[in-house]
Amino acid sequence: MSVLDLVLGRRLANREFNERKIGAFEGLPAMGLDGLGSSAYGPEAALSILIPLGAGATSYIGWVMVPIVALLAILFASYWQTVRAYPSNGGAYIVARDNLGTNASLLAAAALMVDYVLNVAVGIAAGVGALVSAAPALHPYILPLCLAILVIVTVVNLRGTLDAGRVFALPTYLFIVSFGFVLALGAYRVFSSGGNPQALVAPPAAGEATEAVTLWLLLRAFASGCTAMTGVEAVSNGMTAFREPTVKYGHRTLTAIVVILGTLLLGIAFLAHTYEIGAMSQEQDGYRSVLSQISAAVLGEGVLYYTTIGSLLCVLAFSANTSFVDFPRLCRVVAEDGFLPKSFAIAGRRLVFDVGILYLAVTSGVLLIAFGGITDRLIPLFAIGAFLTFTISQTGMVWHWRRSITAGSSNRGNKTHLALNTAGALTTGVALIVIVAAKLLEGAWITIVVLPIVIVLLKNIRSYYDRLFDELRVPAPIKLSDLSAPIAMVTLESWTKLSENALTFAMSISPDVIAVHLLKLSRPDQEEERRKLEERWRAEVEEPLAREGLSPPRLVILQSEYRNLQLPMMKLIDQIKAQHPSKRIAVLIPDVVKDRWYQHLLHTHRAARLRSRLLRLRDEDLTVINVSLRIKQRAEHPQ
Amino acid sequence: MSVLDLVLGRRLANREFNERKIGAFEGLPAMGLDGLGSSAYGPEAALSILIPLGAGATSYIGWVMVPIVALLAILFASYWQTVRAYPSNGGAYIVARDNLGTNASLLAAAALMVDYVLNVAVGIAAGVGALVSAAPALHPYILPLCLAILVIVTVVNLRGTLDAGRVFALPTYLFIVSFGFVLALGAYRVFSSGGNPQALVAPPAAGEATEAVTLWLLLRAFASGCTAMTGVEAVSNGMTAFREPTVKYGHRTLTAIVVILGTLLLGIAFLAHTYEIGAMSQEQDGYRSVLSQISAAVLGEGVLYYTTIGSLLCVLAFSANTSFVDFPRLCRVVAEDGFLPKSFAIAGRRLVFDVGILYLAVTSGVLLIAFGGITDRLIPLFAIGAFLTFTISQTGMVWHWRRSITAGSSNRGNKTHLALNTAGALTTGVALIVIVAAKLLEGAWITIVVLPIVIVLLKNIRSYYDRLFDELRVPAPIKLSDLSAPIAMVTLESWTKLSENALTFAMSISPDVIAVHLLKLSRPDQEEERRKLEERWRAEVEEPLAREGLSPPRLVILQSEYRNLQLPMMKLIDQIKAQHPSKRIAVLIPDVVKDRWYQHLLHTHRAARLRSRLLRLRDEDLTVINVSLRIKQRAEHPQ
Repeated sequence: MSVLDLVLGRRLANREFNERKIGAFEGLPAMGLDGLGSSAYGPEAALSILIPLGAGATSYIGWVMVPIVALLAILFASYWQTVRAYPSNGGAYIVARDNLGTNASLLAAAALMVDYVLNVAVGIAAGVGALVSAAPALHPYILPLCLAILVIVTVVNLRGTLDAGRVFALPTYLFIVSFGFVLALGAYRVFSSGGNPQALVAPPAAGEATEAVTLWLLLRAFASGCTAMTGVEAVSNGMTAFREPTVKYGHRTLTAIVVILGTLLLGIAFLAHTYEIGAMSQEQDGYRSVLSQISAAVLGEGVLYYTTIGSLLCVLAFSANTSFVDFPRLCRVVAEDGFLPKSFAIAGRRLVFDVGILYLAVTSGVLLIAFGGITDRLIPLFAIGAFLTFTISQTGMVWHWRRSITAGSSNRGNKTHLALNTAGALTTGVALIVIVAAKLLEGAWITIVVLPIVIVLLKNIRSYYDRLFDELRVPAPIKLSDLSAPIAMVTLESWTKLSENALTFAMSISPDVIAVHLLKLSRPDQEEERRKLEERWRAEVEEPLAREGLSPPRLVILQSEYRNLQLPMMKLIDQIKAQHPSKRIAVLIPDVVKDRWYQHLLHTHRAARLRSRLLRLRDEDLTVINVSLRIKQRAEHPQ
Repeated sequence: MSVLDLVLGRRLANREFNERKIGAFEGLPAMGLDGLGSSAYGPEAALSILIPLGAGATSYIGWVMVPIVALLAILFASYWQTVRAYPSNGGAYIVARDNLGTNASLLAAAALMVDYVLNVAVGIAAGVGALVSAAPALHPYILPLCLAILVIVTVVNLRGTLDAGRVFALPTYLFIVSFGFVLALGAYRVFSSGGNPQALVAPPAAGEATEAVTLWLLLRAFASGCTAMTGVEAVSNGMTAFREPTVKYGHRTLTAIVVILGTLLLGIAFLAHTYEIGAMSQEQDGYRSVLSQISAAVLGEGVLYYTTIGSLLCVLAFSANTSFVDFPRLCRVVAEDGFLPKSFAIAGRRLVFDVGILYLAVTSGVLLIAFGGITDRLIPLFAIGAFLTFTISQTGMVWHWRRSITAGSSNRGNKTHLALNTAGALTTGVALIVIVAAKLLEGAWITIVVLPIVIVLLKNIRSYYDRLFDELRVPAPIKLSDLSAPIAMVTLESWTKLSENALTFAMSISPDVIAVHLLKLSRPDQEEERRKLEERWRAEVEEPLAREGLSPPRLVILQSEYRNLQLPMMKLIDQIKAQHPSKRIAVLIPDVVKDRWYQHLLHTHRAARLRSRLLRLRDEDLTVINVSLRIKQRAEHPQ
């Protein structure tokens, strides 16, 4: 256990729950990395779509990025309200469940779950991809690097969200400071040069224009750039991680994420425009990302440049952390509603939901392995889930405010709230339609196929639990009919301490004990052990008991014609049942406690097998008891 | 179960044991394939060593092959005697155990086990190698082909040795008839042509001689050719497979194997000599094995040739069957002596020892996968085990006869027996030394390292069982001190049919029942379910029982500060123990019977975990009982 303690930290007590909650300082690294990392691939994705415009591309970036930042502002205002209205958990699942009903909430849950898994795989692969393009010597190790990062993020999150927030604080704040500096210095150069700044490292010349600008091209660029907005919903889903007052810390974290992200997006668009920096095709020799080109243009290629790019790599690689904070919390509420296995709602040693964390790690690990650590093809699937969630969440809030107004709430602000969330729902809804239309053939159809499957699965799980609870409900006071002692059957292999222990226990719970021994259980040519057992039974059980005036148990010896345990046992049980139809029967099976792994190889597991087979074959009139005995350890028995 | 019935056949009854035994007709395919297959690689291996002699190689083949066949004759006579002296099991392990003691018997067992595993891997790889050299298009599928054959041989043997003997009878007898015809026709051509037969397909010209003949070269050729003798011990190890009279069928099978093998070896050497056919280097273009060259020289390249080579491929590929017949039987006697886990001595559904068969399949499968289906490097390790076994077995027989003579047995034949086995022990011992010397650096050292490790493992297993039986031995008549009813503790999650069932069982076995409920077991922020449970307990348990004049069980509600089950339970048990030091305590844990695989994902397994942890922590004063209840199936509950 001490290795686990070292890696994951000691087991936390329930009373430590509140101390383990986070504020905005840890909230930004814990939940914001996905959003901040988006600033790297959103503008890049938009500019990539504009490549066919050649040198003209950078003059249109404003047309794409300003609407995106406007949308971001609407989202910010909407989520600000959501966080206040749902201070304990404002995730899309809860908002939809409370306002739009089960189906909408399950759609939101399914979209979020798929999105969180994709985010882990895509985020880690993007970080490693950027690292490998900076250090091509690492190219053969893409998959191991991806899996190593996955393990780090998993372990840190198994230690708890507070630890995760602290561990990832350094790269997060370094990233913010570095890029803040790049934007400020770049802007200063632009204005001091009268709008014509000189790049320290000149960006490569743009290619020939191969297409004229069209609305469809701009819409596609907008749809691609919208990936910059994923991660904004993170705070609403992770509200349970904050300490009291949760709304205050939630608002602070949300504000930090959105303001920094918005500033970065606008700043990047502005510098790309003025420095005339476009996206390069990844197949091109000497490929550099937009952010790398901008940093080099502003900073040159010194220590500052490498610090900046290093912090960007970290933010990309660890953007998976947002999923690790939110996914288990989402699964927990879904599991509490019975739509996921109950184990998703059990807090582990560090008060986080281990099953969700491990499930996320395994699923995204499988994705990474299946795609060899290169997940470009998954990116188109990515924004759909986020925008679907945005739309459902905003729509839920619209219903929420309308109900408040109908109910005659005195709060005048409600109409403003309604207007804001309506604007949010409409704009994200339109953006969702644009994204689906623009990316349908690139893979968005996969999401459209997968979501219904997930929803059906969730509903099936719920209906299993419904059936289970229905089945287990006790309709009436306790039944007092069968409180007479059961008939106790004890299985014997030979006369050992195991059987002695089981037999005395049987005699302590019932006056009616039957010992059963099966012949030729191992092999047809097994020697007859019947005579030896009968002799010992007489000498060591029957006679001592008779001397004490006790009626000794009956010994029944049976043939196991097919070398299995359950058939002769079942036959005997049926006979006894026929004689005593109203009695319960308890089958006691002696067993050795296996403390060491190798003991499992050295014992035959007959006790466990007999138990599981009897349970499979018989119903509630039978209770199966493994009477276990520990054998002394080697240390106590020097040879 | 019906799929298993289809693949493995129905479960056999003990009374069918004798009908499942085999005669010589099935014995030859079941046990002889290893020996017959040796005729393919023995001469090939010897001639390979002679390649440096160039065209002169074939004139020395007689010098190598005649001693080998002479040794084979001595082995035949020795094993003939062993089979008669040990009619139920004449394997080297038994002979050594009865005559030379434990250490020698374990050495024999270890050598045989290693050899059998190697034989499976090498045999299958050799067969597939021959197939691929005949059909190069199959080259990318070497490993899948190897594993497919392994699965076939495994399944056939899980069906029983009788089935294996019948399945492999066709290729075996086809092989014997085909090569009998090749040898007869070849010999006829040689004599009718006055010793200068014309090859229908001319063998390739031999290379230049690069070395002169030396004794060391001939000894190395002899050592390599000795692989032709592996498989001769198979009958002695597999005696339990034969029906009565086992000696008769054992002798017939042994005779068949040795006579056919000896004839093939001499015939092949003779034809190689007269047709001047030498071994080709496997790297050479258009490589053909010696047997393929001889067949083509005698038969041309028509239907007969392909039938002959096809039967050879089958015999090589299925030569693993000998291991599958003998290895489980060897492991069974070793396990009965306590040197292997007891499960190796349990007969499965088809009256063969499934654990041994599956262990052999998995181990050799791992070897095949590790070597990618090309096991050439394992061949040098191969003959050592066999000759070590020969030598130990013969030496054991020498002691056997010496004791008979010392005991003054009237049988005069004993001196002849003694002489024969002494000759066998000496010649195989010398051969062993030659083989080890010739192959030490090629890999024979691995065997010398591995065998002691296996022996230590076997001895450790035995000492575990010795300790276990020592610990479990009951030194005195049954203890009657503690026959009073135990205190019964029942764990409750909530008040359901599960808990009702467990509680009524507890009340039926003890007047002293305590119900325990743990709070905040899943999460620190779990709602307080205490009040609800207490209300139901009062209404549905306490009041009904009080009305019947029964004293109701006590309900104890505890906090689980660390969200684990065992710590609060242990504390409570300690308290009860302190109050009632002489009482046994039974902990009853309600549980759901899981009939379907998906139920394991949907339940939290708390019952199983609590059981195993309590057993780990406590000793024999505690009995843990999972009181299981089946919930009704979906089919009975249309939604």
